[in-house]
Amino acid sequence: MEEVRVTPWEAEAFVDYDRLIKVFGAKPLTEREVSALKSLTGELHPMVRRYVFYSHRDFDIYLERLRSGARCALYTGRGPSGYTHLGHILPWIFTKWLQDRLGLELFFQMTDDEKFWHDERLELSESNAYAYENSLDLIALGFDYRKTHIIVDSEDIGYLYPIATRVAKKITYSVQRATFGFTDSTNVGLVFYPVLQIAVSFLPTELYDEPTEVLIPAGIDQDPYWRIARDIAPSLGYPKPAQIHNKLLPGLGPEGKMSSSKPETAIYTTDPPEVASQKVMRAFTGGQPTVELQRRLGGNPDRCSVYKMYEMLFEEDDEKLRERYWSCRTGALLCGECKAQLAPRVATFLQDFQKRRERARDVVDRYLLRGKFEKPRVRKS
Amino acid sequence: MEEVRVTPWEAEAFVDYDRLIKVFGAKPLTEREVSALKSLTGELHPMVRRYVFYSHRDFDIYLERLRSGARCALYTGRGPSGYTHLGHILPWIFTKWLQDRLGLELFFQMTDDEKFWHDERLELSESNAYAYENSLDLIALGFDYRKTHIIVDSEDIGYLYPIATRVAKKITYSVQRATFGFTDSTNVGLVFYPVLQIAVSFLPTELYDEPTEVLIPAGIDQDPYWRIARDIAPSLGYPKPAQIHNKLLPGLGPEGKMSSSKPETAIYTTDPPEVASQKVMRAFTGGQPTVELQRRLGGNPDRCSVYKMYEMLFEEDDEKLRERYWSCRTGALLCGECKAQLAPRVATFLQDFQKRRERARDVVDRYLLRGKFEKPRVRKS
Repeated sequence: MEEVRVTPWEAEAFVDYDRLIKVFGAKPLTEREVSALKSLTGELHPMVRRYVFYSHRDFDIYLERLRSGARCALYTGRGPSGYTHLGHILPWIFTKWLQDRLGLELFFQMTDDEKFWHDERLELSESNAYAYENSLDLIALGFDYRKTHIIVDSEDIGYLYPIATRVAKKITYSVQRATFGFTDSTNVGLVFYPVLQIAVSFLPTELYDEPTEVLIPAGIDQDPYWRIARDIAPSLGYPKPAQIHNKLLPGLGPEGKMSSSKPETAIYTTDPPEVASQKVMRAFTGGQPTVELQRRLGGNPDRCSVYKMYEMLFEEDDEKLRERYWSCRTGALLCGECKAQLAPRVATFLQDFQKRRERARDVVDRYLLRGKFEKPRVRKS
Repeated sequence: MEEVRVTPWEAEAFVDYDRLIKVFGAKPLTEREVSALKSLTGELHPMVRRYVFYSHRDFDIYLERLRSGARCALYTGRGPSGYTHLGHILPWIFTKWLQDRLGLELFFQMTDDEKFWHDERLELSESNAYAYENSLDLIALGFDYRKTHIIVDSEDIGYLYPIATRVAKKITYSVQRATFGFTDSTNVGLVFYPVLQIAVSFLPTELYDEPTEVLIPAGIDQDPYWRIARDIAPSLGYPKPAQIHNKLLPGLGPEGKMSSSKPETAIYTTDPPEVASQKVMRAFTGGQPTVELQRRLGGNPDRCSVYKMYEMLFEEDDEKLRERYWSCRTGALLCGECKAQLAPRVATFLQDFQKRRERARDVVDRYLLRGKFEKPRVRKS
């Protein structure tokens, strides 16, 4: 089987997601899970209706446990190697919706240690500073501080370590190497790091002192961590964490997910709105080389970063999205027009977002886990 | 060159220490360093006079820096996998003498995480409990709580992690494997652990916020950690830690260092004095098979665990030790007599020690690092 290039540190954009599900061994999200969710939430988020969240592990069981009154929580996170872009906040938007609809607490991990270990040029003080900058984006999305708890690895390690020590004993070096592609020249920080990301999936059980079902909404690129977490959970006495995977927002260039390594193809929450508009106007599309060909042959929205922006983030109305799809396919809508409609939506979003983001600076402390909970005790596994 | 079996987890007793110095690349302790120490301390501890501490790295430079008024500290530790035996307290006794004579603060690491990772059957809660039990032994030796700071890894990780993250980035998996003999089936806790032992050697510089020279008195089996620590110290902006290595106290059996894995050959500080006496009386010696042969050929104190107990711990008087050596060599002293003289010394030592050890329970909190210092800040490397 051909290799699929999706790891926590590298991902293509227009991957064959059906194949990815098979390779990773996850399950496709079906009408069955979507209905079960709807019966709890009343309505469905566009990202579910459109299968932006498209695969899962035990999401059905999680919903069943939730319905039966079991203690449940949400967990996701961010590797703070720079400012936040729209690809990052995509799963956070859905997570906020889940929090609101289901009344769940969210544990949010800022992996400043991981990013420091991963990027040769990054100082820990820098990734740590980004952890706080990125927290502003989370807060700007409207999360409730009473139910949202941010963990900054380098500072909150005391909360994770009693769990991490027991996790680490269950994972051999060869498992890490096989799962994450580590080599002899990988630094031992990065070799250890997955232990901490896994540990957070067991943290709610420790903090609540009660078995807690955890759902992790995150990009499918994070799946390798959860495969290990699920393997070892029973032997440590924790529930297996469930996952729901989103597709990755494509960058505005010809290939690859929206990525900080190609800033011209990513729209940052901190981009001046006019800069973001320009990035949209310069985006790579699924269009034809000339207007004439476009009118005759139509564009390809399925391979178009601009269409995906509408589909995944900027068009709530399913009917209007469908219209856009077919206008493109039939050649009625030209790429320039389509971009010119998206640019002001992005700019307006950023204007509002950035106001909320600045106000968030005053309240970021309320969102930090530390101080809200007692540290887990060193205890028997 | 034949392999020397001395790693942090395995050591022979009567190793060829001269060869070990060469293999490890340390320097033998010479008259020169001993004189430099004496000029600062006024007199010499028997363990120095007898070269129980016998090799070093930069001990001469450390003493010179100390003399010139540089900030200096001591660092040693313990892997709390069980109760403390006499082999463990040997370097602590010398460390206490250094603290008293040189007025130095001691940082003492209890590696409950390491021992949990290393021993398949040990729970973290158990190694953590031993960390506190072993602290009683340290306190019973008379260390000053105002100058003695115990770090319990699993609980004080917040003090180490800001340093450990930067240490981890400097060490590749292949270096760990080559240095510690890790294999694919080693758990990733143990792969990461050396980072924490190394981090403590840089902790005083962070806590005092001033470059601090650190001397580590410890068994030569711990040397691999310090080789790495010294390699990476300059690139992290820390002084290289200096070491002074002691020989390992032999067990009372025919071979191996005094080791918790052979409890019948180790005298624990918690052994009832009469049990300890019995262990001495049953000890393996360097004597001949029969009294007749012993009288004729003499014994071999250089290969005798009982003689080593006198030399390393229980005979302060050099002249009396020399007498004992030659009485054995010439066959005048029989093993039974020699043991019968040692047994009551050991029993008396334990009686007194155990009283102090029980009183230590009330004051152990005073010795804990946490609360005495601010945690190091996440900062630029």
